[in-house]
Amino acid sequence: MNEPSSLAPVGVVGLGLMGSSIVAALLVAGHPVRAIAPIAQEAPVAPERIAGQLRQCRDAGLIGSVQPYLDGLAISEDYAALAGCELVIECVIEKPEIKSTVYQKITNAVSAGCIIGSNTSAIPISELQKFVDIPARFLGIHWAEPAFMTRFLEITCGEQTDPVFAERVFGMAHRWGKEPTLLKKDIRGFITNRLMYAVYREIFHQIESGNASREDVDKAFRYDAGSWMTLMGIFRRMDYLGLKDFQTILPRIFSELGNSAEVPEIMQQMVREGARGVHNDRGIYPYEAGEGAQWDEAFARFNQKIHLLAAEYSAEKVKAYLQ
Amino acid sequence: MNEPSSLAPVGVVGLGLMGSSIVAALLVAGHPVRAIAPIAQEAPVAPERIAGQLRQCRDAGLIGSVQPYLDGLAISEDYAALAGCELVIECVIEKPEIKSTVYQKITNAVSAGCIIGSNTSAIPISELQKFVDIPARFLGIHWAEPAFMTRFLEITCGEQTDPVFAERVFGMAHRWGKEPTLLKKDIRGFITNRLMYAVYREIFHQIESGNASREDVDKAFRYDAGSWMTLMGIFRRMDYLGLKDFQTILPRIFSELGNSAEVPEIMQQMVREGARGVHNDRGIYPYEAGEGAQWDEAFARFNQKIHLLAAEYSAEKVKAYLQ
Repeated sequence: MNEPSSLAPVGVVGLGLMGSSIVAALLVAGHPVRAIAPIAQEAPVAPERIAGQLRQCRDAGLIGSVQPYLDGLAISEDYAALAGCELVIECVIEKPEIKSTVYQKITNAVSAGCIIGSNTSAIPISELQKFVDIPARFLGIHWAEPAFMTRFLEITCGEQTDPVFAERVFGMAHRWGKEPTLLKKDIRGFITNRLMYAVYREIFHQIESGNASREDVDKAFRYDAGSWMTLMGIFRRMDYLGLKDFQTILPRIFSELGNSAEVPEIMQQMVREGARGVHNDRGIYPYEAGEGAQWDEAFARFNQKIHLLAAEYSAEKVKAYLQ
Repeated sequence: MNEPSSLAPVGVVGLGLMGSSIVAALLVAGHPVRAIAPIAQEAPVAPERIAGQLRQCRDAGLIGSVQPYLDGLAISEDYAALAGCELVIECVIEKPEIKSTVYQKITNAVSAGCIIGSNTSAIPISELQKFVDIPARFLGIHWAEPAFMTRFLEITCGEQTDPVFAERVFGMAHRWGKEPTLLKKDIRGFITNRLMYAVYREIFHQIESGNASREDVDKAFRYDAGSWMTLMGIFRRMDYLGLKDFQTILPRIFSELGNSAEVPEIMQQMVREGARGVHNDRGIYPYEAGEGAQWDEAFARFNQKIHLLAAEYSAEKVKAYLQ
């Protein structure tokens, strides 16, 4: 990683869970961060949360000590603090009307050349872009939680985005320790979500057909797919399996897969019951009171380990090893 | 793990890559193994390959030393060596007529109470079962490579399987350090393959639509899905994400997913060109000569690490931690 505050300042608007996590990622990458808290009560809790995230980065060996990186953070409620930023990332609630107001405040504060990115995972970039003065500089910068740890970053162009800006963010992302993807077309759910929804559709199909339990599905993913996913991805895995049998097996199984576009009954039931998974200890699995919060902790610890493993097997390192 | 040769002897028929790997898994679990090599040239190379696999197990801390476990292995071309086994696992080539002959030889050698399992991933258990004398004792025991390292094991009943035998293997699998799934119905591709084929269908749909490159797809899986898969599986992940937004997003994206039952053009092309992926250095990705073999090594090293990580976050340990 880079020295603390050794790169140009970056702005972040929104200091919820995801916004804080993105701030931590940018601090670790060596940017000073000018963070705007549009929700007033987020400002006082954010520094301690971000400090905790930086401690996780330190424990994983990403940075030497926390304080010099934390010193690069300035939180404000005044958008004027964004002046001078070459990049501002918006991560506020997924409501177009709120995002629209935020974009107006950002563009009032920054120069015409400042790139504006949204962390949205739900609203098409081409739609949000319409709210932005000089829409060519607007694009999707979609992080995965925890943003300061995963190597994932999805950069998405809207219809009006100038690819030059996307390429610039793509280059920056490599300096942030990411292995970014760059989508030149704004498809719903981008790549990651769309691929996962194909999985969701089939797991619900299997559950509703009575062929498997939720535990069976999770074991199959944890212990089979999970054992090679971080090394190979999917296409590399197919090469690894030798390709030979796919020609005969693909059409047989494809024709038996679920094609439903309906919300699965189990999901409708969860919604009717107000289930919010680990957030309120009511979900697809049963939870005891407080168990959800502990899953957060378990994931934080796990993610440090898988991050180190992923870094050890990054595309460059595997390539270097193979040579 | 158990002491070497502290459990009852188990038979394995077929000493190809997968068969050897299953032998290693059973030796590490504490079974003496009586292995039959129906292909004569497999017998001389198998011991060194299995010794290498046991060394991997030692390096991963699964066993203390290799030799006492290797001493439990007896390789023969004579099926009579299977007499006395309570379980025989067949892992020969995926051709029903060959498997049929193998089952006849196995049943001639073993007692009526001996369970016979097949490692098939391509042929329905109910079909193979028809070739077996006393079909109630026949079932699918599907391993993932490397069998001695992953915690995955899929046990599948055919139409005529007596569930008592499936439950018995299910119990044994826990002693082998697996987290097995037990499918009471024989569905094509079982669970794992079927779920992965849903992924394949959508990734080819995205590639053919020009929305993403193979590298984008692999990055999305390696760095997003890969960062939580081994901890959570899929349903737990949905709980973790909070369930709330799925109700609105599921039907939107489901309706845009690919539903093709055709073999994707890219796969047809691979087959026309005789591509066998890492096995002949020609695949979906370009390979230099010899690079394929190095992917084998990379996977072996990676798998030790992910195995340890998966063990650290096994269902029991996460549960204990959460309490």
